[in-house]
Formats: sequence, C-alpha cells, structure tokens
Amino acid sequence: MHAVIISIGDELVLGQTVDTNGAYLSAQLAELGVMTRCHETVADERADIAEALRRACERAELVLVTGGLGPTDDDLTRFALADAMGCGLIEDAQAVAHIERFFAARNRTMHARNRVQAMRPADAALLSDPPGTAPGIHAKLNNTDVWVMPGVPWEMKAIWLKHVKPTLTAGGGRVIRATKLNTFGKGESDVAALLGGLAERDRNPLVGTTVAEGVVSVRVRSAFDDADEAQRRLGATVAAVRDALGDLVYGRDDETLAEVLGALLKARGEKLATAESCTGGMIGQMLTATAGSSDWYAGGWVTYSNDMKSHQLGVRPELIEQHGAVSKPVARTMAEGALEKSGADYALSVTGIAGPTGGTDEKPVGTVWLGLASRHTETQTHHRCLPGDRAAIRQRASLSALNLLRLQLIGG
Amino acid sequence: MHAVIISIGDELVLGQTVDTNGAYLSAQLAELGVMTRCHETVADERADIAEALRRACERAELVLVTGGLGPTDDDLTRFALADAMGCGLIEDAQAVAHIERFFAARNRTMHARNRVQAMRPADAALLSDPPGTAPGIHAKLNNTDVWVMPGVPWEMKAIWLKHVKPTLTAGGGRVIRATKLNTFGKGESDVAALLGGLAERDRNPLVGTTVAEGVVSVRVRSAFDDADEAQRRLGATVAAVRDALGDLVYGRDDETLAEVLGALLKARGEKLATAESCTGGMIGQMLTATAGSSDWYAGGWVTYSNDMKSHQLGVRPELIEQHGAVSKPVARTMAEGALEKSGADYALSVTGIAGPTGGTDEKPVGTVWLGLASRHTETQTHHRCLPGDRAAIRQRASLSALNLLRLQLIGG
Repeated sequence: MHAVIISIGDELVLGQTVDTNGAYLSAQLAELGVMTRCHETVADERADIAEALRRACERAELVLVTGGLGPTDDDLTRFALADAMGCGLIEDAQAVAHIERFFAARNRTMHARNRVQAMRPADAALLSDPPGTAPGIHAKLNNTDVWVMPGVPWEMKAIWLKHVKPTLTAGGGRVIRATKLNTFGKGESDVAALLGGLAERDRNPLVGTTVAEGVVSVRVRSAFDDADEAQRRLGATVAAVRDALGDLVYGRDDETLAEVLGALLKARGEKLATAESCTGGMIGQMLTATAGSSDWYAGGWVTYSNDMKSHQLGVRPELIEQHGAVSKPVARTMAEGALEKSGADYALSVTGIAGPTGGTDEKPVGTVWLGLASRHTETQTHHRCLPGDRAAIRQRASLSALNLLRLQLIGG
Repeated sequence: MHAVIISIGDELVLGQTVDTNGAYLSAQLAELGVMTRCHETVADERADIAEALRRACERAELVLVTGGLGPTDDDLTRFALADAMGCGLIEDAQAVAHIERFFAARNRTMHARNRVQAMRPADAALLSDPPGTAPGIHAKLNNTDVWVMPGVPWEMKAIWLKHVKPTLTAGGGRVIRATKLNTFGKGESDVAALLGGLAERDRNPLVGTTVAEGVVSVRVRSAFDDADEAQRRLGATVAAVRDALGDLVYGRDDETLAEVLGALLKARGEKLATAESCTGGMIGQMLTATAGSSDWYAGGWVTYSNDMKSHQLGVRPELIEQHGAVSKPVARTMAEGALEKSGADYALSVTGIAGPTGGTDEKPVGTVWLGLASRHTETQTHHRCLPGDRAAIRQRASLSALNLLRLQLIGG
C-alpha cells in the first residue's frame, strides 16, 4: 500500500512554519509497511487543495491530510474536500454539541465562527470525540481512503492514534520494519568507517547514516514479504551495528541522550545536578523533557554572569580574572560547587563561547569546557572545540556534557 | 518564477528526521517573489532522485535540492544529478584540496570516502569555499537552474546565502512581500474575531492566522506587479493588524518573545533572573538563545526538587507542605528569592504540573503558577490552566512567564 501526505497552510508554503506532521505520519506509516510516495505542501487555496486531493487519490490508496480545519476564513480543507467529492456541506449536530461543551468546560465564549468546525462534506464522516474543537474527517474518494486531521500536532496525533492507525494493517506488498540507533561522539565518516560493509547500498536490511543536531543516527530498514522475517532480520542487523559501534550508541529511535542518562541514574537511585553557563538552561530543559525526571534530577544553576558563578557556586573572582570564565578551573569549580550545594551524586558543568561574538585567537567561538564532579571519583574536565552556529554549539555542548556522565556510568 | 524544492534522505521519507530546510528555503524564495510550487521528499535511491530532478525541471525554472552530498554510501545526489544530465562524474582537484585542508585544520584524519565529496557531474560546477566538507553544485538542466546543497541546515544556509540567493532577483510575474506578526495570550478564534474584515480571503494583502507552539501568528502576504507597491500595501495592512490586536502582538517574523523581552530590558539597562521548576531551564534556554543576552540576563535556578526550592531560594518547607509545590505562595517566594539572590531587577518564576502524571482533581495537569518579582513594584502571581501535552504545557508556561514581564515593561 502507498500513501500520499498533504500538509495544508500558507505558512508552510511560505516557509513561516516547519511542518512536523509529515515526518510523524511517514514514520508511523513505515512501521505499518506503508511507503509514503510523496509529501506535498499546499497553500490555503480551495481550488489548489481540491486539485491536490484529486491528484493524490490517483497515486495512492491512502491519503493523509493535515491542516485547514480551524475556525478561521483561511481554513478551507473541508470545503475543498467537498469540491473534490462533488457534494455539498452539512452541519453535524453532534459536532456542534461537542464544540459547545468544549468552550463551556473552559468558561470561554464560543464564537459563531467555531460552528464551521462542525461542517462536513455530505458524503463524509466526522471522527468522534476530537481532542480540540476540530473533528477529523474520513471520506472515500474513488477507492482511496482520505483522512483529514487538524494541523496542530498534538491534536493530529490524538486523532491519528485513535481513529486512523487502527484501520491500517500491515499487508499488501513488502512489510517494512525500520529503526535507528543514535550515536554521539564521532563524525558521520568515522561512524561509516566503523560500519564498513554493513552500509552497502544493496544490502537488505539497508543501513544508512544521518546527522541531526550533533547526533549521528544509523538507520536500519528491513523490507521482506513476511512480517516475522522483516523483524528477525532487523534484529540481526541492529545487533551487528551495535557490535561495530560499541558505546557510541546511546539509544534507539526517539530515545534521547537525556532519557537514557535518566534511566541509568534511576537504576542506581542517584541524582544529577547541573551548572550551566553558555547552554543557559538547555541541559536542564533536556533532562526535564522526560516525565518523572524528578526521580533523578535535583535541579541546577544557570550561572550566566560571572557574579552568579561566584555567588551561587563559589567560583572565586580571581580564578575568573586569571583564567577567564571559559576555562578548565572554572568548569571544575562550577561542577564541584553544584555537587556540594545540591547534595546530588553527580554534577555536570558547561562553560563556553557559543558565539557569534566573543571569540579570540586562543579561545575561538566553539571553545567549550565541561566538568563532571561526582561523589565517587575525581572531578573530570574536558575541552571541546565545537563546529556550527550558536544553536549548534549550544546543542552539542549540552549533549557532550550528558554523554560524559553516560560513559562514566556505563564504564563502571 | 516558480520553484520546486526537493529534500533527499531515507530519514525524511521514513519520518525519522523533520526537514527544516524546505521551510527555510520557501521563506527565502517568497521574499524574492518566487513561489514554491511543491516540496517533495525523496529517498536515497539514485533512480528516484534522478526521476524527481527530471520532473521538477519540467515544472519550474528553479530547483533547489538539499541532502545526499555526504561522504557515505547512501549519499547519491551527485550521481543522480549526473544521470539526469546524461553525463559522467569527474573529480574536482580544487575540491579535493579544500577537503584535505578541512581535515588538516581540525587534526582529523581524512577518510578515503571523503574524496567522493569532490566529485561533480562533468557539465556541472562546484560552489567554492563550502563551510563544511561538502561543496554545493550548480547545474543547468534544459532551461532550469538546479542548485544542490548539503542537508545539514547551517551548511545549507551558508551556501544558499553566499552562492544561490545572490543570483536570484525579484522579477517575472507578481512580487510577493510576506511577513508575520506574532501574538501571545489569546486563542486563534479570539485573534480572528479581533481581525474582523482584515481576514477576508479575497483581500490583497491577504491576512491569515496560524498557531504554533502556543503562538498565534498573523501572516500578511502582499502580491503586486510592482515591488514598491507590494511593500507599501504590506506596511499599511501590518499597521491595521497592529491597531486591531494591540499589545497581543509581541514581534515580527522570526522575532521571539525572549528576544523582544531582551531588547526591552537592554534599553533600560536592567537585568532578569529566573527560577524554574516544571520548565526545568527552558526559560533560561530561550533567553540565552539570543547572542548578547548576558547584557540583560543574569542567570537563574532550576529548582526541580523541593530541597532546591528551599535551600537555594528560601522557600520554607512548611509552605510547600501546606500549599504544595505548585501554588501561589511558592511561585511568589521563588520569584522573590531569585530577585534577592541574583541582584537582578526582575525575577520570573514558574511552578506547575506538566504531566502526563502528577495531576489531581483540584490541580489537574496543565496547572501552572507564575511569579514576577521586581525592584519597582509588588510581586505579581498568576494562575494558568494550560492545554496540550507535556512539551506544549512547558512551552506555554515559559512563554506565559516571558509575556508577563513584557506586558509590565511596555505598560510603564
């Protein structure tokens, strides 16, 4: 089975918003063995949307549409779908009642314009109990199933999981099982060198690498007629990749370095604290993105100014004058101060020059010092010279710090 | 002039990576009056890429390609381009020298596989001085200009700005001038109600709304034959939107709430400190994403555990026992503690239940208390009940805190 994904919105065509729904849905489809043939973005133009729907239905048995179900005048997907189906629109009484309840529950006034969200093509069905005000729509166009979902990601996901995914079963053509192993610490060509023959293009399962935000991911894609075989072969290749890459691999699929580190800390019943300068809270934000992180993360300091470094973490001003805020001794004292003041078992520190300004000849933009203090071992400090722009440098500095502790924990 | 954007990579088709390059390039093109006709994602398959290139050249005078220029076996774009052009590949001596210098400068070993990045279709040109190891490629296919850039966003942007953008001039057909006004604090239908007739679909400049990560953006798109008129009409509509929305509008285009707040603080020569619980450092990370934020951001605390709240910010344990960590008095004391300890002029605090667990009947997931302490005025506290998943709640809580201070600063 093949699918076409259509994302609707002027903001997408104009590039004012990055579409994340297409990636989410393609990943979900791949798991079910459905290949996404193409992903198209269309502006908020009724005729263009209708045309894109017709074209998609000629190319695929499944069409997933996101966006254009909102209450405003530029939300035209329901109308375009009716045009493509050649039928009119009707108001769905159940949906009106739902929207009225939605606003009542939040003590918000329901605008007349919200009523349009209860409209559907006469020959299509609204999907029950939407998470927001916009119900999804299911329609048959020729022999193609068309599912329309809201563009707001969490609303789209809720409707996909509840209504659309359950109707799809892995069948028809080859079954695809895909996964990825996430690595941190080496460049893409180093990882490729370690993979050797595993990365040959004619191999099935197919192995490929991708770099995103400092993480080199090794993708494995297994395509066989039989689901069990696809799964078994996937497992064998994943094992081979793990053997080749060793502790460069920190996690799988959506697993983040922070989640993995959290699980390691939780298993030991130990806690981490952070002391951040150039990353400004990014490490804490990464750690707390996981629910339940309070079990293993005590908290931390964003000592962005030198005063904060001195007053909150006990970094002596002379030390900063002598060596600069971005230096080995400052990274060390930040980590040791955070360990002592937090009462945690480990403390990570980062101080660096994220740029674009502030670099010098001996300390160029990208210079970062990391510290790791622990109740069990000597404090470690590490120097890095990271590539990329301000965002990339901050991202890599944060991940480098998390990886330091991960390697120490799995090391012993 | 029309463009087609092709993003290449198994990880995109499989949805393992979100493509941000397409959005960036569409936005850049729109500014130049070039409409993006379609945005296609293609897997790392030589034949598929060549076919997509041929199709694109039939549909547009400009084709922008990102991805598949890396050193590994799944980087096939240069080969597919040669196939589409019907010519062979040759090694470019200058490019080889550049790659050798690149690795030498970083004391890294150059793998043999990196040499492939110096290959180009015989009839195409490599773009000089790439930021990374992968040079971009320019080719003419029939009458279409094809530009191939690396998939790594910061490398792609550097090549786009240096080599591709300068060759494009606003001409041919209507000139488009687009911008967006970013608002925070009200829902999309409230914003639409305030916009009234401005949002009519047949209007030029066209006005539309989009929601992303708690921010409702008002997009304005002005399309006229004359560039000056397009710009003038855009300005007039932007002014009308500002009148209609007042201080809901915090910024324009890519301006973030944090940047805008930073500019307000800098203009007063004042500094901000933060005390974060459920947001775990996200507010600090947002504030420090802007270069030069040390001028107006002192730093802060991530008091994720109750101990940290008590020991670092002086929140009395009895207060937490009596009212809970997510409560008005705790938000107040966190802000006041951060103000006093940091010596800053303002301090923002956030404590809340980001979920998915931890909610109760009287304090459901999404319950957030915000505090704002200041040298000039009484401490404010505010209650919010935020919708969405953990990530959305944390995002909105962070923006709500920043917006509190923004409104106080512009208020007087």
